[in-house]
Amino acid sequence: MGGSKLTHILFFFIIFFFVCWPSVMSTKTMMQPRQPCNSLVLYFHDIIYNGKNAANATSAIVGAPDGANLTILAGNKHFGNMVVFDDPITLDNNLHSEPIGRAQGFYFYDKKDIFTAWLGFSFVLNSTDHKGTINFAGADPLMNKTRDISVIGGTGDFFMTRGIATLMTDAFEGEVYFRLRVDIKLYECY
Amino acid sequence: MGGSKLTHILFFFIIFFFVCWPSVMSTKTMMQPRQPCNSLVLYFHDIIYNGKNAANATSAIVGAPDGANLTILAGNKHFGNMVVFDDPITLDNNLHSEPIGRAQGFYFYDKKDIFTAWLGFSFVLNSTDHKGTINFAGADPLMNKTRDISVIGGTGDFFMTRGIATLMTDAFEGEVYFRLRVDIKLYECY
Amino acid sequence: MGGSKLTHILFFFIIFFFVCWPSVMSTKTMMQPRQPCNSLVLYFHDIIYNGKNAANATSAIVGAPDGANLTILAGNKHFGNMVVFDDPITLDNNLHSEPIGRAQGFYFYDKKDIFTAWLGFSFVLNSTDHKGTINFAGADPLMNKTRDISVIGGTGDFFMTRGIATLMTDAFEGEVYFRLRVDIKLYECY
Repeated sequence: MGGSKLTHILFFFIIFFFVCWPSVMSTKTMMQPRQPCNSLVLYFHDIIYNGKNAANATSAIVGAPDGANLTILAGNKHFGNMVVFDDPITLDNNLHSEPIGRAQGFYFYDKKDIFTAWLGFSFVLNSTDHKGTINFAGADPLMNKTRDISVIGGTGDFFMTRGIATLMTDAFEGEVYFRLRVDIKLYECY
Repeated sequence: MGGSKLTHILFFFIIFFFVCWPSVMSTKTMMQPRQPCNSLVLYFHDIIYNGKNAANATSAIVGAPDGANLTILAGNKHFGNMVVFDDPITLDNNLHSEPIGRAQGFYFYDKKDIFTAWLGFSFVLNSTDHKGTINFAGADPLMNKTRDISVIGGTGDFFMTRGIATLMTDAFEGEVYFRLRVDIKLYECY
Repeated sequence: MGGSKLTHILFFFIIFFFVCWPSVMSTKTMMQPRQPCNSLVLYFHDIIYNGKNAANATSAIVGAPDGANLTILAGNKHFGNMVVFDDPITLDNNLHSEPIGRAQGFYFYDKKDIFTAWLGFSFVLNSTDHKGTINFAGADPLMNKTRDISVIGGTGDFFMTRGIATLMTDAFEGEVYFRLRVDIKLYECY
């Protein structure tokens, strides 16, 4: 019986490692998936309406604090200015590259003594590579070189995704144009 | 021993399929749960304030771009109009059905050449069947027959939920009334 | 063989309970993690700009419905007032305690017959204990003693977190100051 028992034990462990182990492992992996399951680097371009650039502006001030107006960004680091945007998304940092979708949403400046914003928006992607939306929200302390916001959901190719997007100001021209580099790392994919 | 061994193997597999297999399966299911764990179809009704309908309006323009006002939706496909709403939710498409809760949040039009909006809102449900909130965010290209936004969280009966909501414009009357059908599919339930 | 069989069965169950069971359990735990993996109780303080308190105001009205202005909260339970804020976060309920970060975001009043708001904001924490952001969204029926909103994501120390935040109005002084107690329970931690 000794040899037989050993066979059984061996047999059990072989089965176990090939069948149950992946289940144990995948459970762990899900709780600490520090490796992204998908990642993208994209750029978007914001041209703010200033009363004179209606033709090519991609965003407009729609809210402002007392005493401010809707064509000049407010004093106090633009505190209280709320902007709605529909910005082209490109694969590289060239405003004139073929857009692969639109960044649509809003941001507002929310601090009186330093430039800081808060963003809620979607990447609406419609290219051969990507069809679907990625939804974002979070604080953007834009004087920092990089800042992280949350990917709070997605649809289509990005069904139910979650992750982190790292924003970087790639260009900034006066109070009319800025370009953001968005380094998206998705940690939940379906 | 031959028959005995076979019995053991058989025995092992029987146990395995009934005990370990569900665990393996549920783990997989969680990573690709294309089958919703809960679903609801609800309607909500938006009556936009136009300066004359204060008594029964359920929403109002609170932000507008330069040159627009707060009682007439702006030109350029309403680009930049921001609307706050508190709309009744019903189980069917009848505005006068008993509401089971309120859709509360905001939307804004964000494209100059086609009607497109972005939504952030909650379903605040308070009926015998459902008590709790469901939170939504996402882009709404409203000329499309259906469009998907994200369920980003929930409370009460919808504790920690996530999913996809498919919006469909069920009725649209000039610039005063619209009704959305919301087909909610939840893929994370607790 | 009778005793030997019993030994094998026993042997199997011992192995099973120590090896497969944790996997079955952890799967279940993930689906119903009613025990938070992290929790915090914090306060934030909102001082609304009223035209006279520019020096110490932490928030300002930036959107209002037709007929209202930007220094006096609107009638109809402030329906349609949209406020941008940058509020200090403290560990206790004292406005003058050392802030451990800023609550940055927006809220708007969204009901005509009772005070109700909707919030989208971030806790931007920068203390020895916590560095990172927590992002929130949800409905705030502020006449209720407590109300739950969603933690929709986080960054830094709160990488990818999700959970529930229970809001409680800890103080309310006229239309200038309020203090919220935020009881954060995180159910997804990485």
